[in-house]
Amino acid sequence: MTLLNCDMGESYGIWRLGDDERIMPSIHVANVACGFHASDFVHMHRTVRLAKRHGVKVGAHPSLPDRQGFGRREMKIGREELADCLIYQIGALKGFLDAEGMVLHHLKPHGSLYGMAARDPDIAHAVADAADVYEVPLFGMIGTEHERVYTARGHSFVAEFYVDLDYADDGSLIITREHDPVAPEEAARRGVRALREGMVRSVGGRDVPVRAETICVHSDTPGAHEVARVLRDTLVAEGLIPPMAA
Amino acid sequence: MTLLNCDMGESYGIWRLGDDERIMPSIHVANVACGFHASDFVHMHRTVRLAKRHGVKVGAHPSLPDRQGFGRREMKIGREELADCLIYQIGALKGFLDAEGMVLHHLKPHGSLYGMAARDPDIAHAVADAADVYEVPLFGMIGTEHERVYTARGHSFVAEFYVDLDYADDGSLIITREHDPVAPEEAARRGVRALREGMVRSVGGRDVPVRAETICVHSDTPGAHEVARVLRDTLVAEGLIPPMAA
Amino acid sequence: MTLLNCDMGESYGIWRLGDDERIMPSIHVANVACGFHASDFVHMHRTVRLAKRHGVKVGAHPSLPDRQGFGRREMKIGREELADCLIYQIGALKGFLDAEGMVLHHLKPHGSLYGMAARDPDIAHAVADAADVYEVPLFGMIGTEHERVYTARGHSFVAEFYVDLDYADDGSLIITREHDPVAPEEAARRGVRALREGMVRSVGGRDVPVRAETICVHSDTPGAHEVARVLRDTLVAEGLIPPMAA
Amino acid sequence: MTLLNCDMGESYGIWRLGDDERIMPSIHVANVACGFHASDFVHMHRTVRLAKRHGVKVGAHPSLPDRQGFGRREMKIGREELADCLIYQIGALKGFLDAEGMVLHHLKPHGSLYGMAARDPDIAHAVADAADVYEVPLFGMIGTEHERVYTARGHSFVAEFYVDLDYADDGSLIITREHDPVAPEEAARRGVRALREGMVRSVGGRDVPVRAETICVHSDTPGAHEVARVLRDTLVAEGLIPPMAA
Repeated sequence: MTLLNCDMGESYGIWRLGDDERIMPSIHVANVACGFHASDFVHMHRTVRLAKRHGVKVGAHPSLPDRQGFGRREMKIGREELADCLIYQIGALKGFLDAEGMVLHHLKPHGSLYGMAARDPDIAHAVADAADVYEVPLFGMIGTEHERVYTARGHSFVAEFYVDLDYADDGSLIITREHDPVAPEEAARRGVRALREGMVRSVGGRDVPVRAETICVHSDTPGAHEVARVLRDTLVAEGLIPPMAA
Repeated sequence: MTLLNCDMGESYGIWRLGDDERIMPSIHVANVACGFHASDFVHMHRTVRLAKRHGVKVGAHPSLPDRQGFGRREMKIGREELADCLIYQIGALKGFLDAEGMVLHHLKPHGSLYGMAARDPDIAHAVADAADVYEVPLFGMIGTEHERVYTARGHSFVAEFYVDLDYADDGSLIITREHDPVAPEEAARRGVRALREGMVRSVGGRDVPVRAETICVHSDTPGAHEVARVLRDTLVAEGLIPPMAA
Repeated sequence: MTLLNCDMGESYGIWRLGDDERIMPSIHVANVACGFHASDFVHMHRTVRLAKRHGVKVGAHPSLPDRQGFGRREMKIGREELADCLIYQIGALKGFLDAEGMVLHHLKPHGSLYGMAARDPDIAHAVADAADVYEVPLFGMIGTEHERVYTARGHSFVAEFYVDLDYADDGSLIITREHDPVAPEEAARRGVRALREGMVRSVGGRDVPVRAETICVHSDTPGAHEVARVLRDTLVAEGLIPPMAA
Repeated sequence: MTLLNCDMGESYGIWRLGDDERIMPSIHVANVACGFHASDFVHMHRTVRLAKRHGVKVGAHPSLPDRQGFGRREMKIGREELADCLIYQIGALKGFLDAEGMVLHHLKPHGSLYGMAARDPDIAHAVADAADVYEVPLFGMIGTEHERVYTARGHSFVAEFYVDLDYADDGSLIITREHDPVAPEEAARRGVRALREGMVRSVGGRDVPVRAETICVHSDTPGAHEVARVLRDTLVAEGLIPPMAA
C-alpha cells in the first residue's frame, strides 16, 4: 500500500529547518539527511530517535557533497566516487539506526543527485551500487533512469509522487533551491488524484501520468506539517493509505 | 598474542600521507581514518580494499571534527555530542567494510581525542558509548581513563604500546602534531623490550611500565614502512607476534 | 557617544538565523560573521549590502573555525595560527566592503573566541595581531585580557555591554550555545542603567560594574529585533545614544 | 615582457603538495591558492611570506568551493554566487598581502573554474566581476571566453601558455585531476617555441597557435621545481624573460 514519506532531519548545527516534530506524526517513512547536504551527527541521532518514537521507518537521504548549496548544485562526479560518497553517508546513518535498534528501510537520493540520477544512467548506477551494499529498495520516478536502471539490476523500485513540487509538461519533476508553499487541500487533492487516476496536472496544464507507490512531502516547504496532516487525514479517510503507527 | 597496528588511510583528496601500500604487508590490523581528521569516502574505500588484499583486519580510527588540524586540536565537546560524532564515523567506515564483506575489528580514537580520553572520564565514556553500538574491543593505554572506564563498563580493553612516540616520565604518551623519525632498529628494540620486560625508557631516562597487547606504528612518521617491516621481522623472528596473513 | 551593535549575517546556505532585515534599522554598527562560525560568501555580501542601505557601519565578527558548533566550542589554537585564522576572515569581509565602497569599522571576535580572549593573554594578542593588519578598534569587555592586552599595545579599545546575556557574580559574561529570550523593556532598562550608573545586576543578584561604550544585542536571541527597537527608542529618547543614520 | 607564473601554496593542514621552497626562486609571479581548493590560513600566510622573501609577486588563485576535489569538479553555480565566492577568497588572500606590505598582482581562476570560464561567458563575467573589485589584470587563454569577456569589459588580459599540460587539437587546454610528469628540457623547448613562434604541438600532432604573455608551471606536477628551473635558465639565457628578482 502507498506510504507517505518526507525528507527529514535537515537542520544543521544551530540552524533549524523543517518542523520535524509536527510532521513526524503524519508520515510512514522518513528520508533522513546524512550530513552532506544537511544535518550532522547530532541532528541525525535526534531525527532517528524522533522517528522511532513515532513508529516511523527510516530511509537514507544522501546527497552530493554540498552543504552550502543544500545538495542542489549539480556537479560532475564519477560513478565509483559517487557510490563511495553514498556508501559513506548511508553507513553513517545506519550507525544511528544500530544505536536505536532499527533497520534501514530504503534509499532515496537528495536534491540534484535525485535529478541527475533520473537523467544519467551512470549516476543511477552509482546509486544502485550503494543500494547493493545495504540491500534496500530505491525510491524514484517512473519513466526515468531511476526506474530503468534500478529495475534492470533487479532492485526493488518504489515509484514516488510529489504533492508539493511542480511537474514539467514532459512529466519531469521541477527541482528548485527553495520550495514554494502549497495549499494543504490542493496537495491532498493531488495525492488523491495520483492514487485514483495516476495523473497530475503539469505547469503547462497537461495531464501527466504518475505512479504513486509512495508520496513525498518536503519538510522545508513552508507549512509542511499542515500539508502532511491534511494529506494523511484525507488519504487515510479515503482508505488510500494505511493509518500511521503512533 | 600481540598484534601490530598502524594508523592508515590518512590521505585526503589529492593529498597523500603515509605509505600505506608498503606498510600494509607489515601489520596485522589497520586503524582506518574515518573522514574527520583525514581521509574521505574515496580513500576509505581504497584503504579497506588494500587491507582486504593483505588479510589485514580493519578497526575504526575516528577523530574530533578537525580536518585542518588533523584531529590534533583539543576542543570542548560534550559526552553525547562526541558519542554521536564517533557513531557517525564508525558507521561510515562500516559501510565500506559491508561493501567488502569484512567486519569491524576494533575501535581506537585518533590524536587529541585519544589523549583527552586518557585523562577525562567523560570523554572515555563517550568513546565507550560508541563502542557499545558496534560491540568491538577498544585500544588504549594502561593506567589511564582508557583502561579504567572501558574495563569498568565491561568492554574488552587492548593495551597499546607505541614504538614511535616518546613517553613522559609519568608514563603518559607525548602526542605531537607531526611525528619525528625513529630508527627502525631502535623501534624494534623498544618493541622487543616492551613485550619481554614490559618497560620503555621515558624522555627523562626513566624506565616506565607498559603493556603491549598491541603495538602501534604511525603511518605519518617518516620512514614508517621501514619501521613496520623491521619491527615485524624482528618480532616474528623472536616468536613474539604471529606471522602476517599475506 | 555609545553605539548599538549587533552580531549580524549569521545565516548559512539555505538556513536562516536572525531577523537582520528588522534589526538593521535599530543599530549603528553591525558585527558581520565571516564564514567560519556562520554565514558564507553569499550571505556576507547580502549582509554588507543591507548594512549599507541602512547607513550601518560594518565590523568584522570572526570566529574559531567551527561552523557546526557555531564558534561556541573552545579549542586549543596557537597565537600565530589564530592570528592567521582572523586575518583570513577579516580580509574576506573586507572584500565585500571594497565591493560596496565601505570601510571596515572595528573588530569583535565571536563566541568562544571572545570568551577565550577575555581570559587568555595569548589569545588576546592573536586578536590584536589581526587588528594590527587592518588598523581598527577592538570591541571587548573591561577588566579582562581584552582591555589589558589591547590597551597595552596601543589599540583603540571599546568597552562593550550586553543587554541580552547574563553576567556572573565576578563580572564575567556567561556565553551560552543558544541564547534565552530577554524582555525588550528589561533589556532597555539594563541599557539605561549601564549607561547612567555603569552597573548591571549579576545572576547571583550582585551589582557588577560595567562600561558601555557600545551596547550589544545578539541577532540569534529570540525576538532580537524587538529588543533592538525598544532599546534604540529608549536610549535615543533619553539622549544616551545618537539617532540612527537611516 | 613574459613572466613565469606558478600555482603555489597548495598544501593543506598536515598535507604537503608542491615543492614551493624550490620552485619560488624560478618564477616571477605566484598564483596563490585561497583556501577553497587547497591551502588554509596558515599555508596562505606562509606562501605569501615565501614569495616576499624571493621578490615574487602574488596573484590570487581562487577556486570553486571544492577542497576534496581540488577544485577540479565542475559544478553549476550562478554568476552572482560565483562572483561572491571569488571576492571572498581574494579578499582573504589580500589580508595576508596587507599583513606583509604587498599588493595583489593579478587574478587567475583555478582548475575547473578556469576551464568553465574559458567556455561559458557567464562564468567569465563572474570572474571579471570579482576582478572589478580588486582592479587587477586577469590571466587566461586566447581564443576563449577569457579573452573575449575580459577584453570586452576593458580588463587587462594576460595570455597564458602552459608548458606542462597538453593542448587538444582545437587549441583548448586539457585539464586533468592529477598532472603527468613532463621532461624539463621538453618544457623549456615548448616555452621557447611558444615565445618565438607562438605555436605548440597538440596531442593530435597539430600545430596550434598560442600567445605566451605569461608562462605557467604547475607546482603539483612531479618534478615541478626542475621544470621551472630549466625553463627559467633557458628563457633567461635566450633573453626571452627578465631575470628573477632574488
